[in-house]
Formats: sequence, C-alpha cells, structure tokens
Amino acid sequence: MKEWEKYLERAMACQTALTLFEWDNETLAPEEAGSWTARVQGTLSEMYQEVMTDPRLTELIEEAEKEELTDVQRAVIREAKEEIRKLSCIPPEEYRAFQELSAESTRVWAKARESQDFEAFAPILEKIISCQKCFAACQAREGQKLYDVMLDNYEKGFDMEKLDEFFGMLKEELVPFLHQVRESRVRISDEFLKGDYPEEKQRELAEYVAEYMGFDFHKGVLAVSAHPFTTNLHNHDVRITTHYSDRMDSSLFSVIHECGHALYEMGIGDELTQTLAGQGASMGMHESQSRFFENIIGRKEAFWIPLYSRVKEIFPEQLKGVGREMFVKAINKVEPGLIRTEADELTYSLHVMIRYELEKLLIEEDLDVRELPQLWADKYEEYLGVRPTTVAEGVLQDIHWAQGSFGYFPSYALGSAFGAQMYEYMKGQMDFDSLLARGEIGVIREYLREHIHRYGKCRTSREILKEMTGEDFNPACYVRYLKEKYGKLYQI
Amino acid sequence: MKEWEKYLERAMACQTALTLFEWDNETLAPEEAGSWTARVQGTLSEMYQEVMTDPRLTELIEEAEKEELTDVQRAVIREAKEEIRKLSCIPPEEYRAFQELSAESTRVWAKARESQDFEAFAPILEKIISCQKCFAACQAREGQKLYDVMLDNYEKGFDMEKLDEFFGMLKEELVPFLHQVRESRVRISDEFLKGDYPEEKQRELAEYVAEYMGFDFHKGVLAVSAHPFTTNLHNHDVRITTHYSDRMDSSLFSVIHECGHALYEMGIGDELTQTLAGQGASMGMHESQSRFFENIIGRKEAFWIPLYSRVKEIFPEQLKGVGREMFVKAINKVEPGLIRTEADELTYSLHVMIRYELEKLLIEEDLDVRELPQLWADKYEEYLGVRPTTVAEGVLQDIHWAQGSFGYFPSYALGSAFGAQMYEYMKGQMDFDSLLARGEIGVIREYLREHIHRYGKCRTSREILKEMTGEDFNPACYVRYLKEKYGKLYQI
Repeated sequence: MKEWEKYLERAMACQTALTLFEWDNETLAPEEAGSWTARVQGTLSEMYQEVMTDPRLTELIEEAEKEELTDVQRAVIREAKEEIRKLSCIPPEEYRAFQELSAESTRVWAKARESQDFEAFAPILEKIISCQKCFAACQAREGQKLYDVMLDNYEKGFDMEKLDEFFGMLKEELVPFLHQVRESRVRISDEFLKGDYPEEKQRELAEYVAEYMGFDFHKGVLAVSAHPFTTNLHNHDVRITTHYSDRMDSSLFSVIHECGHALYEMGIGDELTQTLAGQGASMGMHESQSRFFENIIGRKEAFWIPLYSRVKEIFPEQLKGVGREMFVKAINKVEPGLIRTEADELTYSLHVMIRYELEKLLIEEDLDVRELPQLWADKYEEYLGVRPTTVAEGVLQDIHWAQGSFGYFPSYALGSAFGAQMYEYMKGQMDFDSLLARGEIGVIREYLREHIHRYGKCRTSREILKEMTGEDFNPACYVRYLKEKYGKLYQI
Repeated sequence: MKEWEKYLERAMACQTALTLFEWDNETLAPEEAGSWTARVQGTLSEMYQEVMTDPRLTELIEEAEKEELTDVQRAVIREAKEEIRKLSCIPPEEYRAFQELSAESTRVWAKARESQDFEAFAPILEKIISCQKCFAACQAREGQKLYDVMLDNYEKGFDMEKLDEFFGMLKEELVPFLHQVRESRVRISDEFLKGDYPEEKQRELAEYVAEYMGFDFHKGVLAVSAHPFTTNLHNHDVRITTHYSDRMDSSLFSVIHECGHALYEMGIGDELTQTLAGQGASMGMHESQSRFFENIIGRKEAFWIPLYSRVKEIFPEQLKGVGREMFVKAINKVEPGLIRTEADELTYSLHVMIRYELEKLLIEEDLDVRELPQLWADKYEEYLGVRPTTVAEGVLQDIHWAQGSFGYFPSYALGSAFGAQMYEYMKGQMDFDSLLARGEIGVIREYLREHIHRYGKCRTSREILKEMTGEDFNPACYVRYLKEKYGKLYQI
C-alpha cells in the first residue's frame, strides 16, 4: 500500500464509522443517546477532514500522479482531489459544528413531525440552510451559483439550467397528462392492499422478495426505521430498512426499491470497495437502479408471475379473490397523494419537482422558511390537485432538509429518467417479459452489474448512460415511457 | 477544552467507534462482512494508538500536571499515563495485526464451537496466545511475570500470589462443601424452569425485570447475541444482550446480571463519561455489581415478592402450581454442570478456578493448546464431578480466549467475593429483605451508585472496598456467605 493510500484508508475508516453511527441512530440507538453520541460523530468528522486536508496528502497525490496508475487508483485520486478541494475551503470548526448540528436537527425534525409543529423545526432549519449556503459559497467556482454547487455535489453535469429544462418538460407533459388520467373512466380498485397485514408476515414477504431479487443476506441486513434507506459499510455489508404499515404495498415496494440500491452496492468490485471510488456513480445513478427495480421491473405483470402464488400463500385471507392481474393493476394505480415516498410511478417526479422549485427559492431567493408550509401546500394543489392539511403530510415529511441535503431531491427524478432511458435501450437487448416470467431476474441484474454497478465511481452518470445506451441523457425517453404505460392502463 | 483533552477526545472517539463495531458484529452484522470490517477496525485501532502515543500528548500531560487539576482531570491523566505506558511498548504494526487477528479469531471460534472441532480453533488460539505473551513481555515491569501483567490489566492489585491465596481458600473450603451439598438428602425440583417458554414472552419478562431494576430504556437497548454481554458508548447509551433458550431462568438471570453491569455504567457521572476514567473501576468491580444483582439480591425470596405475580401472569401455563417459594428454591438449586454461564451461585467460582489454573499453565508453563480439551475435562471431573463429552460444552464454551482476554476470568470470581463483602457490610446499613419486599430496590441501587458507580475509575477496586466496608479485600466473607446460604438450603 502506497503512503497516499494509507491516508485515504484512514479517511475511509472515519467515514465507515460515521456510516455505522448513522445506521445505529436511525434503527436502534436509545432516545437520550443523541447529543452525547453526536460529540463522537463530530470528532470523527473532524478527524476525517484533517486527514483529507493534510497538505502532505496533496503532495503525495501530486507525486503519485506522475507515476503509472491503475484504473482504480486513477478514479480514487480524482475523487480524492475533488473532495480535498471541497473540504479545503470549509474551516474545520465549521465542518464539525455542522455535523453536530445536523445530528441534532434530525432529532428536532422527528419530534416536530410527530407533534405537527413546524415552528419547532423552523429555527434549526434556518441554521442548516445558512450553513449549507456558507459551505456552497466556499466551494463555488468563479461565478457559480450556490444551488448549482449543491446540485453538483449529488449529480455532476446537472445544473439549474439542465434541470429547469428537465423539470420544464415534465411540467409541460406530465401535469396535463395527469389531468387526463384523473378524468379517465377507468377505475382501478386497490382497497385490498390496505388491511390487517401483520408485521411479521410483511417481513416474511419482504425477505422472500429481497432474496429473489438477489439481495444476499450473508452480506446484508434488513431492519426497521422511520424512513426506509440503504447504507453500506462496504460491498460485503449492505443494509436496507423498511417500515411496516397497514398498506402491504408500502413496505413491499420500499423493500424492492432499497434492494435496487443494495444490489448496486453489492455489485461494486472488490478492488473498489473501501476506497473513495467504491460507491455508486452518483445519487441519480443510484436512484436509477432502485427505481428500475421498484417501478420499471417491479410493477410489471411478468415480475409477479413467479412470485404471486407465494404472496397469496403468505396472505391467503387478505388477498382472497384477488388474482394476479387485479393485483398488478392495483400496484399501478395512479392516485395523486401528499406523501412522496408513497407516490405512484407517474406522480412521483412531480413531488420532486415541487421540492426542486422550493429549494431554488430557499437557496437562490432567500425565501423565509416560515413561508414553506403555505407554498408547499399551494404547489401540491397546483400540480397534483391535493392539499396537505398538516405539516406532517406536508413540508415535514422528508428527512433530507433536516440533514442539510439540499440539491439531493432532483436526483430522484433524474434516476427515474435514467432508468427509463436504460430500459428503452435494454429492450433491444433482451426480452424482459419472458425473462421475468421464467423467474430469471438474475439476467437483468447481471446486465446492470456488468454495465453499471461494478464500475463504482470510475464513470460519471452521463458517461455510463452514453456507453450503455449510445446517447447522452435524454429525458424524452422518460416521458415516452410514462405516457405509453399509463396511457394504455387508463385508456387515454 | 485543553489541548491534551482534545487528544484524548480523539482517542475516545476511536474507542467509541470500535465499541459500536463490536456491538454490531455480535448482534447484527452479516456473516460475510467480518474480514472486510476488520480492516476498518484495524485502522481505527491504529489511529487510537497513534493519538495516544503521540509524544506531543505526553509533553502536554507533563505540563498539565504542573497546573491545578480537578479530580476528574487527575483521574483521566492517571489512566492516560498508564495506557500510554502500555501502548508505547507495543509496536503499532503488531497492535493493529492483533486487532485484526482477534476479530478473525472470534469468527473461527464460533464456527469451531458449532462444528465441535477444537482442531479448527487450535492454530489461531496459539497465535492469539503468542501475541498476548509478546504484548505482556513488552509491558512487563522489571522481573514481573507475564501472567501477572495480564492479571493487572483487568484487576490492579491482584497478582498470582494474591489469587493463589484466594482460589486456594475456595478450593479448600468449597470443593468439600460442594461434596456435602451433593450428599444432602434435600431434593429441589426445578424441571418447570425448562419447557415451552416462547421467546417473545421471555423478552417481555426480561424488559419488565430490567425496568424494575432501574435499567432506563431511554438510555439503553436490549438485544440478542450468542453470548450475553453489556457494552456502552457512554452513560446515556448502555446496551445489554441476552439469549433465549427453553430454560427461562437462563435468559432471566442473564438479564439481571447484565443489568447489574448496565446500572454501573448508567450510574457513572456525566463529568466522567466519555473520558478515560469514565468506565467501571475494574473488571472485578464490574462483576461485583452484576453478581450482586444476579445472585445476592436476585435469588433472594424477598426480591420476588413484588415481581412473582407478574411472572405467573406471563407464564400461566408453564408455572401452573408453582408457588413463589418453590420458584425461589428452584432458582437456587445447586447442580454442578459443564457450562460456566449456566452455573449456579455456589459452583460458579469453581468454573473460574479451572480457567485460572489453565491460563497459568498456558502463559507460565507453555502448555500446548492441544492438551487443553483433556486437561479441561479432568479438572471438571475433579472439582465439580462432571465431565464434558464435547468441546462445545468444554473448552470452546467461552469467547474470552478467542478475543485474547487472558487474565480476565479471575475477575468473575473476585467480583462475587467483592459483592459478598459489600453485602456483609451493607446488611448493617439497611434491611434488604424488607426493602425488596416493598419493591424498593431503588434504595439499594442508589446506595451502590453513591458509593461505587459514580466514581468511575477515580478509585481502584481495593480503595472502593476499603472506603465502603472499612477493610481491604477479605475473601472469607464470600466463603461465609456461600456456606451460610447453602448450608441452610441444603440442611448441612
């Protein structure tokens, strides 16, 4: 191991520890531990930053670049330089303070959500935003706008200009299309998805479907948390969470979604894991995988051909008289709602669009956070035709802002669009319906591993798209995919 | 915060992260994660050692000692100097290699135990022992024996000379006394403790009893692991584990035991936690608390007066016709067995004595590890009158040696003896039977917190005993306590 690699090994050890603390906080840690553990997290963050910004590391990297490097080393060095550049401009004290603040903030958010009290969250949200703006200002290149800096942290090559265009197309095409769907005379019943679905039975189904998809429980864990997420310590320890409610499709599709993320992380090469290039290419590329499995594959009738008899076995009473076709229609029902994570495939990106518009206002127009609940509600009414009556089903539903993740949301919609573009191309390479009908999901998974997963961060999302599909990002595929699928289902 | 305190804060952050990794490995981590995560643990250990052995820290501490210090600072500096002395003599590479080795070794041990294959464990055990001897040799003061160095790591002031005396007394007094008990005509029936005790019901009882004892679930977690243990990130995050079997007393008393440890950690002062002096005074003092609750208090009839009706409610069928008196007799039944963690109060310290004798042979006489299974069996036959037929119920039953914890076992027996000495003294201060009968266990717990817990490592175990009971360690109290209690029960 080279000396520069030893530095990065230490940085990664701090990051891996921080990942485990975060996992533990979300799934298990006792209530009062928070502020005490936050000190430890703060110290580890500080140590991480100190290792990365050590001038000796920069020297060593500059020397290393003159020598012959493997592909992995080249990718790691590129990521390291980018990270050093970002960190170097943030004073260590502020960086540490932010880590502690965001740990505190997620706790405040959880309580505020529970007690329906936006005012309790507003002051700390203001602090979080001001910190994030300050960090972005430090990181900004000459003339770069703050929100563009934030967007770049999650998705290289997608700034406001590109996203305005993307969301512009969605607004123009999908908002009126959704209107047509709502006017359609087709009625889909899905009441049976809600009912007395015991948690342990839902868990049994979750494990069965996860295993079928290729989630390897020897390298993975499934647990429960308030907000489902995927995390990983390395490619041999990938963890997903879900939550159980009286809607069986809620946990079922959150598990399929998180499994998509998990398969990505499990598919990263052994030579890459535990390095700075050993994660998914970008947030959007990650979402492309989770949404590909959740929606494009997971809501297809063919997906359920080999699985549905088991679903019925697990829930014989609850699904009495519900055939596969009826089940598949139900899980594709379009119903504009208030909660992003419960949204159907068609309306999902409109939820994201609202957050994108609000983030732009918060970051670029200094919107007063106290205006958020009202603006949030107005936009939901305008685009989705529904209006939240409480902040828990409105502006407080997501953890992201509490964590300081501004610029993250657009990746969700981009991911869906990436996935649709891949799907359009892959349809020429394989017959999805017959593969899925025969239970051969592994062929699809391995194709994705081969073309995406194993590269980690060695390629950017746009490079992956180009090399895989032969063209740069093309949002029209996504609109085509949605209109074709839902036009057919709703006879438009 | 002083500069030397910042150094120690980083050292503690590494330790806290390592604690969380260990907890996670024992309770949740996926099977194949081990060797990958071990790299991270190795790096964190190295970082810990580097912070502690930084010459600048030693300089800063020397300067700090010239200034006025608080009691806490004095204790922290004393612990830091001791730790620096120990670490400074171990080369960092070897220290790191050992951390990885011991992580690997516990996995090999678990598999060997499962497959009843001592040979599979022997080679790595040899490596562990040779590492431990090498570390002890580095740490040894002029003329100090290796096993004395190891003993000192767990219990200051108790070397082989003192322990030969202690275990000599136990051998002389308890082995023949046990013989009398076995010849006694008193027959105690306890078959009802074994049966169809559903795990979730056992868990319900465990939570009930833990809460009654004062285990605060806002600051604590109860989980499941192969071998019950207690750990803590700080005094606001204390975690215990148990395992469930068809013997309800097995998990019940392991929970009471671990709660004793947990109350100690929860009782440590806020000004001490997250410092090097913020843990229990010693392993033996820790065991004194767990065994005090498990045996001296927890197996008393009075303890069960306020609790037994709930026990019957939880297990109405299983304990049909079993009155409180019968239950209490059953949980005090003496029955020499093969498994230390399942041993009754009287025979427990004889299990420890066997391990002490074998450790002395391994460390001081270079005993070949391949002789362990035979010697182990012979000693069990001689002292306890039972002989293991498999290694799982013999030499492979404990995790300690796999972790490199040599010199740890004696603390278990010392803890029992410390507890008996405290009990003898405390009986003059309070009426245990009437307090417990009224459900006022809190009075006892607060007395222990006042005299022991809150001090953390500010006092040694011998200092605590002296200040609390007015005399130095006196093993005769322990023999008296056991002979009186079991003489009465077995009518000797």
